[in-house]
Amino acid sequence: MSTEQRHLLVIGIGAGDPDHLTLGAVRAIRRADVFFLIGKGPEKSSLTDFRRGVIDAHADGPYRIVETQDPPRDREAAGRGAYTAAVHDWRTRRADACEQLIREELAPGQAGAFLVWGDPALYDGTLSMLEEIAARGTVGFDVEVVPGISSVSALAARHRIGLNQVGRPVHVTPARRLAEFFPGDGDGDGDDGNGAAGDGDVVVMLDAHESFAGIGGGDDVWIYWGAYIGTPDEILVSGRLSEVADRIRQVRAEARARHGWIMDTYLLRRTGDA
Amino acid sequence: MSTEQRHLLVIGIGAGDPDHLTLGAVRAIRRADVFFLIGKGPEKSSLTDFRRGVIDAHADGPYRIVETQDPPRDREAAGRGAYTAAVHDWRTRRADACEQLIREELAPGQAGAFLVWGDPALYDGTLSMLEEIAARGTVGFDVEVVPGISSVSALAARHRIGLNQVGRPVHVTPARRLAEFFPGDGDGDGDDGNGAAGDGDVVVMLDAHESFAGIGGGDDVWIYWGAYIGTPDEILVSGRLSEVADRIRQVRAEARARHGWIMDTYLLRRTGDA
Ligand SMILES: C[S@@+](CC[C@H](N)C(=O)[O-])C[C@H]1O[C@@H](n2cnc3c(N)ncnc32)[C@H](O)[C@@H]1O
Ligand SMILES: C[S@@+](CC[C@H](N)C(=O)[O-])C[C@H]1O[C@@H](n2cnc3c(N)ncnc32)[C@H](O)[C@@H]1O
Repeated sequence: MSTEQRHLLVIGIGAGDPDHLTLGAVRAIRRADVFFLIGKGPEKSSLTDFRRGVIDAHADGPYRIVETQDPPRDREAAGRGAYTAAVHDWRTRRADACEQLIREELAPGQAGAFLVWGDPALYDGTLSMLEEIAARGTVGFDVEVVPGISSVSALAARHRIGLNQVGRPVHVTPARRLAEFFPGDGDGDGDDGNGAAGDGDVVVMLDAHESFAGIGGGDDVWIYWGAYIGTPDEILVSGRLSEVADRIRQVRAEARARHGWIMDTYLLRRTGDA
Repeated sequence: MSTEQRHLLVIGIGAGDPDHLTLGAVRAIRRADVFFLIGKGPEKSSLTDFRRGVIDAHADGPYRIVETQDPPRDREAAGRGAYTAAVHDWRTRRADACEQLIREELAPGQAGAFLVWGDPALYDGTLSMLEEIAARGTVGFDVEVVPGISSVSALAARHRIGLNQVGRPVHVTPARRLAEFFPGDGDGDGDDGNGAAGDGDVVVMLDAHESFAGIGGGDDVWIYWGAYIGTPDEILVSGRLSEVADRIRQVRAEARARHGWIMDTYLLRRTGDA
Protein backbone atom coordinates (compact mmCIF):
# COMPACT_ATOMS: atom_id res chain seq x y z
CA MET A 1 0.00 0.00 0.00
CA SER A 2 1.27 3.45 -0.87
CA THR A 3 2.18 5.73 1.99
CA GLU A 4 1.78 8.81 -0.17
CA GLN A 5 -0.83 11.30 0.95
CA ARG A 6 -3.79 12.38 -1.07
CA HIS A 7 -3.92 16.18 -1.43
CA LEU A 8 -7.15 18.11 -1.35
CA LEU A 9 -7.27 21.64 -2.70
CA VAL A 10 -10.17 23.75 -1.53
CA ILE A 11 -10.14 26.61 -4.00
CA GLY A 12 -12.18 29.78 -3.69
CA ILE A 13 -13.23 30.81 -7.20
CA GLY A 14 -14.96 34.10 -6.45
CA ALA A 15 -18.62 34.94 -6.54
CA GLY A 16 -19.57 34.93 -10.21
CA ASP A 17 -17.00 36.95 -12.15
CA PRO A 18 -14.27 34.81 -13.79
CA ASP A 19 -11.91 37.73 -13.10
CA HIS A 20 -12.32 37.12 -9.34
CA LEU A 21 -10.06 34.09 -9.65
CA THR A 22 -6.71 34.68 -7.98
CA LEU A 23 -3.35 33.76 -9.43
CA GLY A 24 -3.07 31.27 -6.56
CA ALA A 25 -6.38 29.69 -7.56
CA VAL A 26 -5.20 29.37 -11.15
CA ARG A 27 -1.99 27.74 -9.94
CA ALA A 28 -3.92 25.35 -7.72
CA ILE A 29 -6.29 24.42 -10.56
CA ARG A 30 -3.26 23.56 -12.71
CA ARG A 31 -2.04 21.18 -9.99
CA ALA A 32 -5.29 19.25 -9.74
CA ASP A 33 -5.65 15.74 -11.15
CA VAL A 34 -9.33 15.40 -10.29
CA PHE A 35 -12.06 18.02 -9.85
CA PHE A 36 -14.98 17.18 -7.61
CA LEU A 37 -18.09 19.04 -8.72
CA ILE A 38 -21.01 18.85 -6.33
CA GLY A 39 -24.26 20.07 -7.83
CA LYS A 40 -26.87 21.57 -5.55
CA GLY A 41 -30.29 23.13 -5.64
CA PRO A 42 -32.04 24.89 -8.47
CA GLU A 43 -29.04 27.11 -9.21
CA LYS A 44 -27.07 23.89 -9.71
CA SER A 45 -26.64 23.77 -13.46
CA SER A 46 -25.71 27.39 -13.80
CA LEU A 47 -23.10 27.29 -11.02
CA THR A 48 -21.76 23.95 -12.24
CA ASP A 49 -21.43 25.37 -15.74
CA PHE A 50 -19.47 28.26 -14.26
CA ARG A 51 -17.10 25.84 -12.56
CA ARG A 52 -16.66 23.87 -15.78
CA GLY A 53 -15.82 27.12 -17.52
CA VAL A 54 -13.17 27.89 -14.91
CA ILE A 55 -11.66 24.42 -15.33
CA ASP A 56 -11.73 24.73 -19.13
CA ALA A 57 -10.02 28.08 -19.00
CA HIS A 58 -7.26 27.24 -16.56
CA ALA A 59 -6.69 23.52 -15.99
CA ASP A 60 -3.64 21.75 -17.37
CA GLY A 61 -4.38 18.28 -18.72
CA PRO A 62 -4.62 15.48 -18.02
CA TYR A 63 -7.42 15.89 -15.50
CA ARG A 64 -10.73 14.28 -14.69
CA ILE A 65 -14.02 15.78 -13.55
CA VAL A 66 -16.13 13.78 -11.12
CA GLU A 67 -19.63 15.14 -10.74
CA THR A 68 -22.12 14.20 -8.03
CA GLN A 69 -25.39 15.49 -6.74
CA ASP A 70 -25.76 16.82 -3.24
CA PRO A 71 -28.00 14.67 -1.03
CA PRO A 72 -31.45 16.25 -0.57
CA ARG A 73 -31.77 18.62 2.37
CA ASP A 74 -34.62 19.56 4.66
CA ARG A 75 -34.95 23.26 3.91
CA GLU A 76 -38.18 23.64 5.83
CA ALA A 77 -36.64 23.07 9.27
CA ALA A 78 -37.79 25.98 11.41
CA GLY A 79 -36.18 27.43 14.53
CA ARG A 80 -32.52 27.78 15.25
CA GLY A 81 -31.97 24.29 16.69
CA ALA A 82 -33.90 22.50 13.96
CA TYR A 83 -32.10 24.44 11.27
CA THR A 84 -28.68 23.56 12.66
CA ALA A 85 -29.68 19.91 13.07
CA ALA A 86 -30.97 19.73 9.49
CA VAL A 87 -27.74 21.21 8.18
CA HIS A 88 -25.64 18.82 10.26
CA ASP A 89 -27.61 15.79 9.11
CA TRP A 90 -27.31 16.84 5.50
CA ARG A 91 -23.61 17.38 5.95
CA THR A 92 -23.10 13.88 7.32
CA ARG A 93 -24.75 12.34 4.29
CA ARG A 94 -22.72 14.63 2.09
CA ALA A 95 -19.54 13.58 3.92
CA ASP A 96 -20.39 9.90 3.35
CA ALA A 97 -20.67 10.46 -0.38
CA CYS A 98 -17.53 12.55 -0.46
CA GLU A 99 -15.45 10.14 1.57
CA GLN A 100 -16.25 7.48 -0.99
CA LEU A 101 -15.26 9.76 -3.87
CA ILE A 102 -11.92 10.64 -2.28
CA ARG A 103 -11.13 7.00 -1.63
CA GLU A 104 -12.26 5.69 -5.00
CA GLU A 105 -11.55 8.51 -7.40
CA LEU A 106 -8.29 9.91 -6.06
CA ALA A 107 -5.11 7.83 -5.91
CA PRO A 108 -2.57 8.43 -3.14
CA GLY A 109 -0.18 11.16 -4.27
CA GLN A 110 -2.81 12.77 -6.48
CA ALA A 111 -4.43 16.16 -5.95
CA GLY A 112 -8.18 16.56 -5.90
CA ALA A 113 -9.84 19.97 -6.09
CA PHE A 114 -13.08 21.42 -4.78
CA LEU A 115 -14.00 24.67 -6.50
CA VAL A 116 -15.82 26.63 -3.83
CA TRP A 117 -18.09 29.54 -4.62
CA GLY A 118 -16.81 32.86 -3.25
CA ASP A 119 -14.48 32.38 -0.30
CA PRO A 120 -14.35 28.91 1.31
CA ALA A 121 -14.36 30.65 4.73
CA LEU A 122 -17.83 32.15 4.42
CA TYR A 123 -21.01 30.10 4.81
CA ASP A 124 -19.62 27.11 2.98
CA GLY A 125 -19.54 23.57 4.29
CA THR A 126 -16.60 22.11 2.37
CA LEU A 127 -13.98 22.59 5.10
CA SER A 128 -16.06 21.23 7.94
CA MET A 129 -17.07 18.30 5.74
CA LEU A 130 -13.42 17.46 5.09
CA GLU A 131 -12.71 17.79 8.79
CA GLU A 132 -15.51 15.34 9.51
CA ILE A 133 -14.14 12.88 6.96
CA ALA A 134 -10.60 13.24 8.31
CA ALA A 135 -11.82 12.57 11.84
CA ARG A 136 -13.21 9.20 10.73
CA GLY A 137 -9.66 8.10 9.96
CA THR A 138 -10.84 5.99 7.02
CA VAL A 139 -8.92 7.81 4.29
CA GLY A 140 -5.80 9.96 4.71
CA PHE A 141 -5.33 13.35 3.03
CA ASP A 142 -3.99 16.81 3.63
CA VAL A 143 -5.90 19.98 2.88
CA GLU A 144 -4.78 23.25 1.35
CA VAL A 145 -7.12 26.23 1.17
CA VAL A 146 -6.93 28.97 -1.44
CA PRO A 147 -8.92 32.04 -0.33
CA GLY A 148 -11.38 33.57 -2.77
CA ILE A 149 -13.25 36.80 -3.36
CA SER A 150 -16.45 36.47 -1.34
CA SER A 151 -19.82 37.80 -2.46
CA VAL A 152 -19.41 40.28 0.41
CA SER A 153 -16.23 41.77 -1.05
CA ALA A 154 -17.82 41.73 -4.49
CA LEU A 155 -20.91 43.54 -3.21
CA ALA A 156 -18.82 46.28 -1.63
CA ALA A 157 -16.66 46.68 -4.74
CA ARG A 158 -19.61 47.01 -7.08
CA HIS A 159 -21.21 49.65 -4.83
CA ARG A 160 -17.80 51.26 -4.31
CA ILE A 161 -18.28 51.28 -0.55
CA GLY A 162 -16.45 50.06 2.50
CA LEU A 163 -18.02 47.34 4.61
CA ASN A 164 -17.28 49.27 7.78
CA GLN A 165 -17.35 52.86 8.92
CA VAL A 166 -14.26 54.38 10.54
CA GLY A 167 -13.35 52.53 13.72
CA ARG A 168 -16.57 50.52 13.79
CA PRO A 169 -17.35 46.81 13.52
CA VAL A 170 -19.11 45.04 10.68
CA HIS A 171 -21.36 42.05 11.24
CA VAL A 172 -22.03 39.34 8.69
CA THR A 173 -25.14 37.32 9.34
CA PRO A 174 -27.40 34.74 7.77
CA ALA A 175 -30.76 36.36 7.13
CA ARG A 176 -32.51 34.21 9.71
CA ARG A 177 -30.49 35.94 12.42
CA LEU A 178 -30.95 39.47 11.08
CA ALA A 179 -33.69 40.59 13.46
CA GLU A 180 -31.31 40.37 16.41
CA PHE A 181 -29.17 43.13 14.97
CA PHE A 182 -31.82 45.80 14.75
CA PRO A 183 -34.02 47.13 17.50
CA GLY A 184 -37.51 45.90 16.70
CA ASP A 185 -40.73 47.84 16.60
CA GLY A 186 -41.80 46.21 19.86
CA ASP A 187 -44.95 44.60 18.56
CA GLY A 188 -43.74 41.14 19.49
CA ASP A 189 -44.00 39.79 15.97
CA GLY A 190 -40.53 38.34 15.85
CA ASP A 191 -38.61 41.27 14.46
CA ASP A 192 -37.90 42.67 17.89
CA GLY A 193 -34.14 42.34 18.06
CA ASN A 194 -32.00 43.89 20.76
CA GLY A 195 -30.04 45.97 18.28
CA ALA A 196 -26.86 43.92 18.63
CA ALA A 197 -25.41 45.69 15.62
CA GLY A 198 -24.78 48.80 17.69
CA ASP A 199 -23.28 51.35 15.32
CA GLY A 200 -21.79 48.69 13.04
CA ASP A 201 -22.77 47.81 9.51
CA VAL A 202 -24.60 44.53 8.87
CA VAL A 203 -24.09 42.30 5.84
CA VAL A 204 -26.84 39.79 5.16
CA MET A 205 -26.46 36.52 3.27
CA LEU A 206 -28.65 33.50 2.56
CA ASP A 207 -31.85 35.50 2.50
CA ALA A 208 -34.78 33.49 1.18
CA HIS A 209 -37.44 35.84 2.50
CA GLU A 210 -36.48 39.49 1.89
CA SER A 211 -35.71 39.94 5.56
CA PHE A 212 -34.60 43.54 5.00
CA ALA A 213 -38.26 44.46 4.72
CA GLY A 214 -38.93 43.37 8.29
CA ILE A 215 -36.36 45.27 10.32
CA GLY A 216 -37.08 48.27 12.48
CA GLY A 217 -35.60 51.73 12.03
CA GLY A 218 -35.93 51.68 8.23
CA ASP A 219 -35.81 55.46 7.92
CA ASP A 220 -32.33 55.66 9.34
CA VAL A 221 -30.99 52.66 7.46
CA TRP A 222 -29.35 52.58 4.06
CA ILE A 223 -29.26 49.41 2.03
CA TYR A 224 -26.73 48.42 -0.61
CA TRP A 225 -28.26 45.42 -2.34
CA GLY A 226 -26.91 43.20 -5.10
CA ALA A 227 -28.03 40.07 -6.89
CA TYR A 228 -26.03 37.79 -9.20
CA ILE A 229 -23.09 40.07 -8.42
CA GLY A 230 -20.21 39.78 -10.84
CA THR A 231 -22.26 37.95 -13.47
CA PRO A 232 -23.84 39.40 -16.63
CA ASP A 233 -27.17 39.32 -14.75
CA GLU A 234 -25.96 41.54 -11.91
CA ILE A 235 -28.53 43.89 -10.38
CA LEU A 236 -27.60 46.63 -7.90
CA VAL A 237 -29.95 48.84 -5.91
CA SER A 238 -29.04 51.22 -3.11
CA GLY A 239 -30.76 53.92 -1.13
CA ARG A 240 -32.64 54.65 2.05
CA LEU A 241 -34.24 51.36 3.07
CA SER A 242 -37.68 52.87 3.59
CA GLU A 243 -37.57 54.32 0.08
CA VAL A 244 -36.12 51.43 -1.91
CA ALA A 245 -37.38 48.34 -0.08
CA ASP A 246 -40.43 47.98 -2.34
CA ARG A 247 -38.38 48.41 -5.48
CA ILE A 248 -35.93 45.74 -4.33
CA ARG A 249 -38.76 43.33 -3.54
CA GLN A 250 -40.21 43.86 -6.99
CA VAL A 251 -36.91 43.61 -8.86
CA ARG A 252 -36.01 40.58 -6.79
CA ALA A 253 -39.27 38.77 -7.45
CA GLU A 254 -39.03 39.41 -11.18
CA ALA A 255 -35.41 38.26 -11.36
CA ARG A 256 -36.13 35.18 -9.32
CA ALA A 257 -39.04 34.24 -11.55
CA ARG A 258 -36.93 34.77 -14.66
CA HIS A 259 -33.92 32.72 -13.48
CA GLY A 260 -35.73 30.17 -11.33
CA TRP A 261 -33.36 31.05 -8.45
CA ILE A 262 -31.63 34.05 -6.98
CA MET A 263 -28.53 34.81 -4.95
CA ASP A 264 -28.44 38.19 -3.32
CA THR A 265 -26.48 39.89 -0.56
CA TYR A 266 -26.80 43.30 1.01
CA LEU A 267 -25.27 45.69 3.46
CA LEU A 268 -27.37 47.66 5.95
CA ARG A 269 -25.86 50.84 7.36
CA ARG A 270 -27.31 53.11 9.98
CA THR A 271 -27.05 56.68 8.73
CA GLY A 272 -28.23 58.49 11.83
CA ASP A 273 -24.71 59.33 12.93
CA ALA A 274 -22.76 58.38 9.83
CA MET B 1 -10.55 71.99 -22.00
CA SER B 2 -10.98 68.28 -22.39
CA THR B 3 -14.28 66.79 -21.34
CA GLU B 4 -12.75 63.35 -20.95
CA GLN B 5 -12.98 61.82 -17.50
CA ARG B 6 -10.08 60.75 -15.41
CA HIS B 7 -10.41 57.11 -14.30
CA LEU B 8 -9.39 55.92 -10.88
CA LEU B 9 -8.82 52.24 -10.25
CA VAL B 10 -8.92 51.16 -6.63
CA ILE B 11 -7.32 47.73 -6.78
CA GLY B 12 -7.23 45.24 -3.93
CA ILE B 13 -3.90 43.42 -4.09
CA GLY B 14 -4.39 40.90 -1.29
CA ALA B 15 -2.79 40.77 2.10
CA GLY B 16 0.84 39.85 1.47
CA ASP B 17 0.97 36.90 -0.92
CA PRO B 18 1.55 37.89 -4.57
CA ASP B 19 -0.68 34.93 -5.47
CA HIS B 20 -3.64 36.70 -3.82
CA LEU B 21 -3.84 39.01 -6.82
CA THR B 22 -6.94 38.35 -8.90
CA LEU B 23 -7.03 38.14 -12.67
CA GLY B 24 -9.18 41.28 -12.54
CA ALA B 25 -6.51 43.07 -10.52
CA VAL B 26 -3.86 42.08 -13.06
CA ARG B 27 -6.08 43.35 -15.86
CA ALA B 28 -6.68 46.64 -14.02
CA ILE B 29 -2.95 47.08 -13.34
CA ARG B 30 -2.32 46.68 -17.07
CA ARG B 31 -4.78 49.49 -17.79
CA ALA B 32 -3.15 51.99 -15.44
CA ASP B 33 -1.10 54.92 -16.73
CA VAL B 34 -0.12 56.17 -13.29
CA PHE B 35 0.27 54.36 -9.97
CA PHE B 36 -0.18 56.37 -6.79
CA LEU B 37 1.85 54.87 -3.98
CA ILE B 38 1.14 56.31 -0.57
CA GLY B 39 3.71 55.33 2.04
CA LYS B 40 2.59 55.10 5.63
CA GLY B 41 3.93 54.25 9.07
CA PRO B 42 6.87 52.11 10.01
CA GLU B 43 5.77 49.23 7.78
CA LYS B 44 5.90 51.72 4.88
CA SER B 45 8.98 50.63 3.00
CA SER B 46 8.18 46.96 3.14
CA LEU B 47 4.60 47.40 1.94
CA THR B 48 5.66 49.92 -0.70
CA ASP B 49 8.29 47.47 -1.93
CA PHE B 50 5.57 44.84 -2.19
CA ARG B 51 3.47 47.19 -4.32
CA ARG B 52 6.44 47.97 -6.55
CA GLY B 53 6.95 44.24 -6.98
CA VAL B 54 3.32 43.83 -8.04
CA ILE B 55 3.65 46.65 -10.55
CA ASP B 56 6.94 45.25 -11.88
CA ALA B 57 5.41 41.82 -12.32
CA HIS B 58 2.18 42.84 -14.02
CA ALA B 59 2.12 46.38 -15.41
CA ASP B 60 2.26 47.04 -19.11
CA GLY B 61 4.42 50.01 -20.05
CA PRO B 62 4.47 52.90 -20.40
CA TYR B 63 3.46 53.81 -16.86
CA ARG B 64 4.57 56.16 -14.14
CA ILE B 65 4.80 55.71 -10.39
CA VAL B 66 4.03 58.71 -8.20
CA GLU B 67 5.03 58.20 -4.60
CA THR B 68 4.01 60.36 -1.66
CA GLN B 69 4.14 60.16 2.08
CA ASP B 70 1.03 60.04 4.20
CA PRO B 71 0.53 63.13 6.35
CA PRO B 72 1.41 62.44 9.99
CA ARG B 73 -1.46 61.15 12.13
CA ASP B 74 -2.32 61.53 15.79
CA ARG B 75 -2.22 57.90 16.90
CA GLU B 76 -2.49 58.72 20.57
CA ALA B 77 -6.07 60.01 20.41
CA ALA B 78 -7.95 58.14 23.12
CA GLY B 79 -11.66 57.43 23.38
CA ARG B 80 -14.03 56.64 20.59
CA GLY B 81 -14.87 60.22 19.61
CA ALA B 82 -11.29 61.46 19.69
CA TYR B 83 -10.14 58.49 17.66
CA THR B 84 -12.75 59.07 14.98
CA ALA B 85 -11.96 62.79 14.90
CA ALA B 86 -8.22 62.14 14.56
CA VAL B 87 -8.85 59.74 11.69
CA HIS B 88 -11.17 62.21 9.96
CA ASP B 89 -8.69 65.07 10.32
CA TRP B 90 -5.89 62.95 8.94
CA ARG B 91 -8.10 61.87 6.08
CA THR B 92 -8.85 65.47 5.13
CA ARG B 93 -5.17 66.31 4.90
CA ARG B 94 -4.61 63.12 2.98
CA ALA B 95 -7.45 64.06 0.61
CA ASP B 96 -5.88 67.48 0.01
CA ALA B 97 -2.62 65.88 -1.04
CA CYS B 98 -4.38 63.32 -3.17
CA GLU B 99 -6.64 65.80 -4.91
CA GLN B 100 -3.55 67.66 -6.02
CA LEU B 101 -1.93 64.49 -7.32
CA ILE B 102 -5.00 63.53 -9.32
CA ARG B 103 -5.22 66.98 -10.86
CA GLU B 104 -1.54 67.39 -11.60
CA GLU B 105 -0.30 63.90 -12.30
CA LEU B 106 -3.23 62.40 -14.19
CA ALA B 107 -4.42 63.78 -17.52
CA PRO B 108 -8.10 63.58 -18.45
CA GLY B 109 -8.72 60.26 -20.18
CA GLN B 110 -5.91 58.57 -18.27
CA ALA B 111 -6.27 55.86 -15.64
CA GLY B 112 -4.67 56.21 -12.23
CA ALA B 113 -4.39 53.27 -9.84
CA PHE B 114 -4.31 52.91 -6.07
CA LEU B 115 -3.02 49.52 -4.98
CA VAL B 116 -4.88 48.83 -1.77
CA TRP B 117 -3.70 46.28 0.78
CA GLY B 118 -6.09 43.36 1.19
CA ASP B 119 -9.62 44.26 0.17
CA PRO B 120 -10.45 47.96 -0.34
CA ALA B 121 -13.72 47.36 1.53
CA LEU B 122 -12.16 46.52 4.88
CA TYR B 123 -10.65 49.15 7.18
CA ASP B 124 -9.14 51.14 4.36
CA GLY B 125 -9.64 54.84 3.74
CA THR B 126 -9.06 55.06 -0.01
CA LEU B 127 -12.71 54.94 -1.07
CA SER B 128 -13.98 57.47 1.45
CA MET B 129 -11.06 59.73 0.59
CA LEU B 130 -11.99 59.64 -3.09
CA GLU B 131 -15.61 60.30 -2.15
CA GLU B 132 -14.50 63.33 -0.17
CA ILE B 133 -12.44 64.62 -3.10
CA ALA B 134 -15.29 64.02 -5.54
CA ALA B 135 -17.69 65.94 -3.28
CA ARG B 136 -15.47 69.02 -3.52
CA GLY B 137 -16.19 69.14 -7.25
CA THR B 138 -12.71 70.45 -8.00
CA VAL B 139 -11.55 67.59 -10.21
CA GLY B 140 -13.75 65.10 -12.11
CA PHE B 141 -13.13 61.37 -12.17
CA ASP B 142 -14.91 58.05 -12.05
CA VAL B 143 -14.00 55.22 -9.74
CA GLU B 144 -13.78 51.49 -10.34
CA VAL B 145 -13.13 49.08 -7.49
CA VAL B 146 -11.45 45.69 -7.85
CA PRO B 147 -12.07 43.53 -4.78
CA GLY B 148 -9.11 41.83 -3.14
CA ILE B 149 -8.35 38.96 -0.77
CA SER B 150 -8.59 40.48 2.71
CA SER B 151 -6.33 39.54 5.59
CA VAL B 152 -9.47 38.01 7.11
CA SER B 153 -9.93 35.58 4.21
CA ALA B 154 -6.20 34.88 4.24
CA LEU B 155 -6.24 34.15 7.98
CA ALA B 156 -9.08 31.67 7.60
CA ALA B 157 -7.45 29.96 4.60
CA ARG B 158 -4.11 29.50 6.38
CA HIS B 159 -5.85 28.01 9.43
CA ARG B 160 -8.15 26.00 7.14
CA ILE B 161 -11.20 27.19 9.05
CA GLY B 162 -14.46 28.92 8.30
CA LEU B 163 -15.08 32.40 9.67
CA ASN B 164 -18.54 31.40 10.86
CA GLN B 165 -20.16 28.41 12.44
CA VAL B 166 -23.27 26.90 10.84
CA GLY B 167 -26.11 29.40 10.74
CA ARG B 168 -24.31 31.92 12.97
CA PRO B 169 -23.03 35.44 12.42
CA VAL B 170 -19.42 36.57 12.30
CA HIS B 171 -18.32 39.96 13.58
CA VAL B 172 -15.29 41.85 12.35
CA THR B 173 -14.06 44.53 14.71
CA PRO B 174 -11.17 46.90 15.28
CA ALA B 175 -9.37 45.81 18.45
CA ARG B 176 -10.42 48.94 20.33
CA ARG B 177 -14.03 47.75 20.16
CA LEU B 178 -13.30 44.13 21.09
CA ALA B 179 -14.33 44.32 24.73
CA GLU B 180 -17.95 44.96 23.75
CA PHE B 181 -18.20 41.55 22.15
CA PHE B 182 -17.30 39.47 25.17
CA PRO B 183 -18.95 39.45 28.56
CA GLY B 184 -16.43 41.02 30.92
CA ASP B 185 -15.28 39.77 34.26
CA GLY B 186 -17.33 42.46 35.97
CA ASP B 187 -14.46 44.18 37.72
CA GLY B 188 -15.15 47.48 35.98
CA ASP B 189 -11.71 47.73 34.44
CA GLY B 190 -12.88 48.41 30.92
CA ASP B 191 -13.10 44.86 29.61
CA ASP B 192 -16.68 44.47 30.74
CA GLY B 193 -18.48 44.14 27.44
CA ASN B 194 -22.08 43.09 27.09
CA GLY B 195 -21.20 40.04 25.05
CA ALA B 196 -22.59 41.47 21.82
CA ALA B 197 -20.97 38.63 19.91
CA GLY B 198 -23.64 36.24 21.10
CA ASP B 199 -22.73 32.85 19.64
CA GLY B 200 -20.94 34.37 16.66
CA ASP B 201 -17.25 34.32 15.86
CA VAL B 202 -15.25 37.54 16.21
CA VAL B 203 -12.42 38.62 13.92
CA VAL B 204 -10.10 41.28 15.30
CA MET B 205 -8.03 43.71 13.22
CA LEU B 206 -5.85 46.72 13.95
CA ASP B 207 -4.71 45.43 17.31
CA ALA B 208 -1.83 47.45 18.74
CA HIS B 209 -2.22 46.17 22.27
CA GLU B 210 -2.79 42.39 22.30
CA SER B 211 -6.43 42.92 23.20
CA PHE B 212 -7.11 39.18 23.07
CA ALA B 213 -5.37 38.92 26.44
CA GLY B 214 -7.97 41.14 28.10
CA ILE B 215 -11.27 39.50 27.24
CA GLY B 216 -13.38 37.46 29.62
CA GLY B 217 -14.29 33.80 29.17
CA GLY B 218 -10.84 32.77 27.95
CA ASP B 219 -11.32 29.12 28.86
CA ASP B 220 -14.19 28.72 26.45
CA VAL B 221 -12.61 30.72 23.66
CA TRP B 222 -10.40 29.46 20.87
CA ILE B 223 -8.08 31.78 19.05
CA TYR B 224 -6.76 31.45 15.51
CA TRP B 225 -4.00 34.02 15.25
CA GLY B 226 -1.80 35.02 12.34
CA ALA B 227 0.87 37.64 11.67
CA TYR B 228 2.39 38.69 8.33
CA ILE B 229 -0.05 36.23 6.78
CA GLY B 230 0.79 35.24 3.23
CA THR B 231 4.35 36.55 3.44
CA PRO B 232 7.53 34.53 4.01
CA ASP B 233 7.45 35.82 7.62
CA GLU B 234 4.00 34.37 8.35
CA ILE B 235 3.42 33.10 11.88
CA LEU B 236 0.33 31.11 12.86
CA VAL B 237 -0.75 30.06 16.35
CA SER B 238 -4.06 28.52 17.38
CA GLY B 239 -5.50 26.90 20.47
CA ARG B 240 -7.54 27.52 23.57
CA LEU B 241 -7.07 31.21 24.37
CA SER B 242 -6.24 30.59 28.02
CA GLU B 243 -3.51 28.16 26.98
CA VAL B 244 -1.89 29.99 24.07
CA ALA B 245 -2.32 33.68 24.96
CA ASP B 246 1.09 33.90 26.62
CA ARG B 247 2.81 32.19 23.74
CA ILE B 248 1.19 34.57 21.24
CA ARG B 249 2.26 37.58 23.30
CA GLN B 250 5.82 36.32 23.36
CA VAL B 251 5.98 35.39 19.67
CA ARG B 252 4.33 38.68 18.80
CA ALA B 253 6.73 40.78 20.85
CA GLU B 254 9.74 39.02 19.35
CA ALA B 255 8.48 39.37 15.80
CA ARG B 256 7.59 42.99 16.31
CA ALA B 257 11.04 43.75 17.68
CA ARG B 258 12.69 41.93 14.79
CA HIS B 259 10.65 43.63 12.04
CA GLY B 260 10.09 47.00 13.67
CA TRP B 261 6.32 46.59 13.01
CA ILE B 262 3.69 43.90 12.96
CA MET B 263 0.39 43.23 11.31
CA ASP B 264 -1.72 40.53 12.88
CA THR B 265 -5.32 39.40 12.75
CA TYR B 266 -7.17 36.73 14.67
CA LEU B 267 -10.45 34.95 15.02
CA LEU B 268 -12.02 34.26 18.42
CA ARG B 269 -14.53 31.41 18.63
CA ARG B 270 -16.58 30.36 21.58
CA THR B 271 -16.30 26.60 21.95
CA GLY B 272 -18.79 26.04 24.72
CA ASP B 273 -21.54 24.96 22.35
CA ALA B 274 -19.57 24.52 19.15
C1 LIG C 1 -23.93 29.33 0.84
S1 LIG C 1 -23.48 31.03 0.82
C2 LIG C 1 -21.89 30.94 0.09
C3 LIG C 1 -21.11 32.22 0.19
C4 LIG C 1 -19.80 32.16 -0.52
N1 LIG C 1 -18.88 31.20 0.11
C5 LIG C 1 -19.15 33.54 -0.57
O1 LIG C 1 -18.00 33.69 -0.11
O2 LIG C 1 -19.76 34.45 -1.13
C6 LIG C 1 -24.54 31.61 -0.46
C7 LIG C 1 -24.94 33.06 -0.28
O3 LIG C 1 -23.89 33.90 -0.74
C8 LIG C 1 -24.42 35.06 -1.34
N2 LIG C 1 -23.93 35.13 -2.72
C9 LIG C 1 -23.06 34.29 -3.31
N3 LIG C 1 -22.77 34.68 -4.54
C10 LIG C 1 -23.47 35.82 -4.76
C11 LIG C 1 -23.56 36.71 -5.86
N4 LIG C 1 -22.87 36.51 -7.00
N5 LIG C 1 -24.38 37.78 -5.73
C12 LIG C 1 -25.06 38.00 -4.59
N6 LIG C 1 -25.00 37.19 -3.54
C13 LIG C 1 -24.21 36.10 -3.62
C14 LIG C 1 -25.92 34.97 -1.22
O4 LIG C 1 -26.30 35.65 -0.03
C15 LIG C 1 -26.14 33.50 -1.07
O5 LIG C 1 -27.32 33.22 -0.36
C1 LIG D 1 -5.75 49.22 7.91
S1 LIG D 1 -6.24 47.57 8.04
C2 LIG D 1 -6.32 47.12 6.34
C3 LIG D 1 -7.00 45.81 6.09
C4 LIG D 1 -6.97 45.40 4.63
N1 LIG D 1 -7.76 46.31 3.80
C5 LIG D 1 -7.48 43.98 4.47
O1 LIG D 1 -8.43 43.75 3.70
O2 LIG D 1 -6.90 43.08 5.05
C6 LIG D 1 -4.76 46.82 8.61
C7 LIG D 1 -5.00 45.59 9.47
O3 LIG D 1 -5.22 44.49 8.63
C8 LIG D 1 -4.68 43.32 9.21
N2 LIG D 1 -3.72 42.75 8.26
C9 LIG D 1 -3.45 43.19 7.02
N3 LIG D 1 -2.58 42.39 6.40
C10 LIG D 1 -2.29 41.40 7.25
C11 LIG D 1 -1.45 40.25 7.17
N4 LIG D 1 -0.74 39.96 6.06
N5 LIG D 1 -1.38 39.45 8.26
C12 LIG D 1 -2.09 39.71 9.36
N6 LIG D 1 -2.90 40.77 9.48
C13 LIG D 1 -3.00 41.61 8.44
C14 LIG D 1 -4.08 43.71 10.54
O4 LIG D 1 -5.06 43.50 11.52
C15 LIG D 1 -3.84 45.17 10.33
O5 LIG D 1 -3.85 45.87 11.56
